Amino acid sequence: MLREHEIEIRVRYPECDPMGLLHHSRVFVYFEMGRTELLRASGGNYRQLEEQGLFVVVVEARCRYYRPARYDDLLRLRTRVTRMSGYKIEHEYHLFRGEELLCRGQVTLAVVDRTGQVRPIPEAWQLEFSKEAGESANLRSEVQSE
Amino acid sequence: MLREHEIEIRVRYPECDPMGLLHHSRVFVYFEMGRTELLRASGGNYRQLEEQGLFVVVVEARCRYYRPARYDDLLRLRTRVTRMSGYKIEHEYHLFRGEELLCRGQVTLAVVDRTGQVRPIPEAWQLEFSKEAGESANLRSEVQSE
Amino acid sequence: MLREHEIEIRVRYPECDPMGLLHHSRVFVYFEMGRTELLRASGGNYRQLEEQGLFVVVVEARCRYYRPARYDDLLRLRTRVTRMSGYKIEHEYHLFRGEELLCRGQVTLAVVDRTGQVRPIPEAWQLEFSKEAGESANLRSEVQSE
Amino acid sequence: MLREHEIEIRVRYPECDPMGLLHHSRVFVYFEMGRTELLRASGGNYRQLEEQGLFVVVVEARCRYYRPARYDDLLRLRTRVTRMSGYKIEHEYHLFRGEELLCRGQVTLAVVDRTGQVRPIPEAWQLEFSKEAGESANLRSEVQSE
Repeated sequence: MLREHEIEIRVRYPECDPMGLLHHSRVFVYFEMGRTELLRASGGNYRQLEEQGLFVVVVEARCRYYRPARYDDLLRLRTRVTRMSGYKIEHEYHLFRGEELLCRGQVTLAVVDRTGQVRPIPEAWQLEFSKEAGESANLRSEVQSE
Repeated sequence: MLREHEIEIRVRYPECDPMGLLHHSRVFVYFEMGRTELLRASGGNYRQLEEQGLFVVVVEARCRYYRPARYDDLLRLRTRVTRMSGYKIEHEYHLFRGEELLCRGQVTLAVVDRTGQVRPIPEAWQLEFSKEAGESANLRSEVQSE
Repeated sequence: MLREHEIEIRVRYPECDPMGLLHHSRVFVYFEMGRTELLRASGGNYRQLEEQGLFVVVVEARCRYYRPARYDDLLRLRTRVTRMSGYKIEHEYHLFRGEELLCRGQVTLAVVDRTGQVRPIPEAWQLEFSKEAGESANLRSEVQSE
Repeated sequence: MLREHEIEIRVRYPECDPMGLLHHSRVFVYFEMGRTELLRASGGNYRQLEEQGLFVVVVEARCRYYRPARYDDLLRLRTRVTRMSGYKIEHEYHLFRGEELLCRGQVTLAVVDRTGQVRPIPEAWQLEFSKEAGESANLRSEVQSE
């Protein structure tokens, strides 16, 4: 799986509240779009996962809001995998309008089967992640050794 | 099934748009709440229906908007069964704020099984409906004969 | 204003219901996106309109559903202006998955000012529409005269 | 302002996702309903606040999910004010189905004016809160002194 991915999102009219601002609950929908597209860009597909009987559930979600987004804003969401243990995945999200950071979130996921039983993170994801993480680590060590 | 039922709905903040008005798409969610509660008040339960493998799908939906609803308004939704044939149910909806009519809708439903195949309307519903319709018809004829 | 415009929409996870289908109320949000993008493609901007104190309200909305859309489907929405009188605009919407027609809707709009007073459709829109309609008419007559 | 308040919420069909579970983003809408009703039960009104040109914005939101809620569940949300400084209010939320805790959240709010400038928390709220907090403190010390 890719470590990081960016998508563009146009703020929809009914996503905004009477203040004219993107409702704070909606960023969690955007975050979900971010990780779905990161998975797709990595060659995976969340719908196929569900068809195999595996479901991703949210264990914890948080967001810190700095500036409001408004109707019709064209936003840029950066999604990054920050942790992948045997049973949990954590992503970090940065939502920008141009270069301006609007909010920053973290969401922790687990994988469950049809009965709701927690299942290990699919191996394919883990290997890819470690490989990429390893490459980044290598890259960093090269840079540092200069 | 009861022929008519009323519920109260408090307009939520993120259901309103930057104009400060209930977004027009949301009334269809209210209408669905109206028919769910009509079914519950009749002794039925939509969730149990789904557990038996029957699903209600919307075939047609329409609404005529007269006046806007606003954040925090306490509304009254009247749901009425207007037609029940072998394969279709039609409800009519009137959404009020006090005595003021805000909008009027109609939604036509069909029942499908897990494979998406159209199934006859559950018999229990039909009998109840005819019985009640019959009573109303009787009532009307009595009134008219006076 | 352009007479017709198409956009692509990816169905989001929380837009789908427990049946796994796009909830019927959501197509009205898609339709709104369709007319917003038609306006943008025509050189207009709905947000600017609101900043000038003009607001578009929905007078009537309807949709006929033929086939369900599912999570992660990439849909194509065609929006077409079908009527523009002094005080009303009507659009027609066709939502496709590939070549398959999923639903067809009509929405009638009016323009109001900050006080909720109905206002004539902005002249710029009307002229553009008539011009384009005229061109289409010419085009049709040429085709027919062959 | 009251320190704590409880409301009942019936899970709506389109609030649930293809897993049949309440979408994780929706609890933040429930939390908002919880604090709105706590304010109303305290004799205040959020809509009136907005009409005076004061708006409540979310600075930080988080939730820890333990068990999923399902369509048609009748839930109980307990909202409690946990902190009220000069510029920030923090609430804690516990969402239950029967006695079962489904999730626990915290949301931090600030008050801004029409220009987006941060404003002190309305004095009326602070006094009420201190008074109640004081009473609770008194109550606790009495209990402890027994």
